[in-house]
Amino acid sequence: MTLSQDAPLRFGANYTPSRGWMHAWLDLDLDDVRRDFAGLAALGLDHVRIFPLWPVLQPNRTLIRDSALADVRAVVDVAAEFGMDASVDVIQGHLSSFDFIPSWLSTWHDKSMFTHPQALSGQVALIERLGAALREAPNFLGFTLGNEVNQFSAAVHPSPWPVTPGEAATWLTTLLDAADRSAPGRPHVHSEYDAAWYMDGHGFVPAHASRIGAMTTVHSWIFNGTAQRYGGRSVASDRHAEYMIELSRAFAADPARPVWLQEVGAPSNCLEPEQTPGFLEATVRAAARTESLWGVTWWCSHDVSRELADFPELEYSLGLIDQSGSAKPIGRRFAEIVPELRVRRPVPARTTAIVIEVDRDEIPVSRAAMSPGGAIFQAWVDACESGADVAFATSLTADDPAALAARGIADLIRPDLSRGIGVYSSSNTVVD
Amino acid sequence: MTLSQDAPLRFGANYTPSRGWMHAWLDLDLDDVRRDFAGLAALGLDHVRIFPLWPVLQPNRTLIRDSALADVRAVVDVAAEFGMDASVDVIQGHLSSFDFIPSWLSTWHDKSMFTHPQALSGQVALIERLGAALREAPNFLGFTLGNEVNQFSAAVHPSPWPVTPGEAATWLTTLLDAADRSAPGRPHVHSEYDAAWYMDGHGFVPAHASRIGAMTTVHSWIFNGTAQRYGGRSVASDRHAEYMIELSRAFAADPARPVWLQEVGAPSNCLEPEQTPGFLEATVRAAARTESLWGVTWWCSHDVSRELADFPELEYSLGLIDQSGSAKPIGRRFAEIVPELRVRRPVPARTTAIVIEVDRDEIPVSRAAMSPGGAIFQAWVDACESGADVAFATSLTADDPAALAARGIADLIRPDLSRGIGVYSSSNTVVD
Repeated sequence: MTLSQDAPLRFGANYTPSRGWMHAWLDLDLDDVRRDFAGLAALGLDHVRIFPLWPVLQPNRTLIRDSALADVRAVVDVAAEFGMDASVDVIQGHLSSFDFIPSWLSTWHDKSMFTHPQALSGQVALIERLGAALREAPNFLGFTLGNEVNQFSAAVHPSPWPVTPGEAATWLTTLLDAADRSAPGRPHVHSEYDAAWYMDGHGFVPAHASRIGAMTTVHSWIFNGTAQRYGGRSVASDRHAEYMIELSRAFAADPARPVWLQEVGAPSNCLEPEQTPGFLEATVRAAARTESLWGVTWWCSHDVSRELADFPELEYSLGLIDQSGSAKPIGRRFAEIVPELRVRRPVPARTTAIVIEVDRDEIPVSRAAMSPGGAIFQAWVDACESGADVAFATSLTADDPAALAARGIADLIRPDLSRGIGVYSSSNTVVD
Repeated sequence: MTLSQDAPLRFGANYTPSRGWMHAWLDLDLDDVRRDFAGLAALGLDHVRIFPLWPVLQPNRTLIRDSALADVRAVVDVAAEFGMDASVDVIQGHLSSFDFIPSWLSTWHDKSMFTHPQALSGQVALIERLGAALREAPNFLGFTLGNEVNQFSAAVHPSPWPVTPGEAATWLTTLLDAADRSAPGRPHVHSEYDAAWYMDGHGFVPAHASRIGAMTTVHSWIFNGTAQRYGGRSVASDRHAEYMIELSRAFAADPARPVWLQEVGAPSNCLEPEQTPGFLEATVRAAARTESLWGVTWWCSHDVSRELADFPELEYSLGLIDQSGSAKPIGRRFAEIVPELRVRRPVPARTTAIVIEVDRDEIPVSRAAMSPGGAIFQAWVDACESGADVAFATSLTADDPAALAARGIADLIRPDLSRGIGVYSSSNTVVD
């Protein structure tokens, strides 16, 4: 997939139903969806990303519910009523600290969703059925395999299914092949939470993010140590999404590969409410200064109702729209800047690259150095604070003059990996 | 609760929907339920036990779905259309090797359903809401707290929430109090799988089963080592349910406390298909020879569809009715004997009791000795094979002449606990 310079930048929201959150799938009311989507369309957004729940779609491995497939299609069609496209996450999986694992993969039936043959064939079947239900929808943007399901491979997770990079790649390509077969011609992607970038030993690696699927997706959350270390409205936080976008480009095989800033939000444990519009604007403007950006999808559309219990506190206030259906200041700011940013403008050339030392498998030798506070991260912050727009290159690229030239990189910065201490933490999952 | 000698013995089935198994709750079709219940009523059954799924009823701790409550009520009402009563299990929980734990209690939100204050208050709220939905249904038989949820307390379970006997009792009484408040006057009960009887160290203990709630429930499965050790149609297997009923009576504070044989089935890993009608008849006739039996509820109503994957093999063939809707030979046998057995007849006096050594908390000093192959179990089998009808008494009762007299026990058998080796295993959860 290659982006045309004429293609508008895309702006959308991750859809968190205002009534019942994702549990709304159990009692789908299309008028509720219409009311929610009307609010998003009124902000000038052009797409939504939606999240059916895995146990609702596929309660038994061989029971994929026709009615649940029809519900997903119906929500995609409602998006079309409002002139919006819809991206569909298929394996959910993990959302806002809650895990939804079907009973056929849990406890007595515990088997790795990534490597067990029956788990793989079951997921392929689900993608094929959902693809068949969506392929004719003109506004279907394609699948994301699932929201940050690499959570389930992390050793810190209570029910880990660890994977090697090879196993992760097989899971990704097996499921993306099913997506391409069942709904051809759509830009199907996958998504990871930032452990792929920041956690050494994590089986999902940068090369997966940057090479597999139609686009690279970036999920940027400043509660990962960035805000704690540098401040919520620091340059490091304002440009954290841009940082991840640029990091990802270092690992792409295709320099023109599009990047989708698929998730970014303004968390209340890092920002005061009055800071969030400015944070949104700074984040989006910084991202818009990167090459081949497909678009930005804010997390999230609607505040989670206080009637629902047990969410981490920050999850209740991430919406562009509040529980009354009114656009919040952050939502209004989004609406104000979108018309200007939708038209692509030339982006700064990045002729200096910070080098990321990688091994022969192109895995960073220190993902901790890339994480907030690490030497690579700090080199980026230093460059930003000096007013420079820098890129990243792996050590393999850095040693290859032709590859550097292809990316227009003339100068290299080699961080001292012995300096800087990564303070990465995935604190969205710290339950209050 | 005291049974009248005029009260008919009750016969029913644990309801496993023929289409979609328990996942049918996600797409409830009352005509499907009518077809299934018509088949059960045609067998002469007078009640069903039904199993809504916990994550469907209560996907978030504070989101108890009105539509799901209405669905449960609708199924109870359909039972009434066929002249049947309906018992409702509320915390599901565990069914046929599959666990259904809502996301607000699992992985990142892992907290003990038995002891965490929010888990307790959440379950109380669910029972209160469901009780309000069912209290006016004339044919509502009351709640069972959940199907064998003591599974979740066992150390062998992949996600254990271990409990002490005191914690288990608090969970039981807290939830039963909520049931009594919300649907007063119904015989609310709880159920355990047989670890309460056979597994030393298990937090749910015989005294809970025999003293808490309106009746004692018995779940009898000969795949627990009985069939493996003694044979599928041995006296030990044919009278295993009777054994558990008599065991339970030893721990009752009220000698007239009713006992409900709530679950018993004919598993294909222990019995040839042609043996199952005989096993059913022997099991039911043996149970009918015990005092204060409320009734027998067979597991289960309908064979699980082969279209559904990953059930342990035996679960596909436990039905009284097959996938075509026809009564199987085991179902026809049930129908043949029910009219005769419904009328209560005098039961044999049991003047000899096998003594169960208990500690000062009335916990058996060796539950292994009670388990298949153990010394107490073997003493029962020996008595059965000699043609005797024996009872059980705890060592506290055995040392109390008045208590013995109240139960009409004149002779005692004291098994040598150093003999016999328990071979208990809970093999329904061995996944093929």
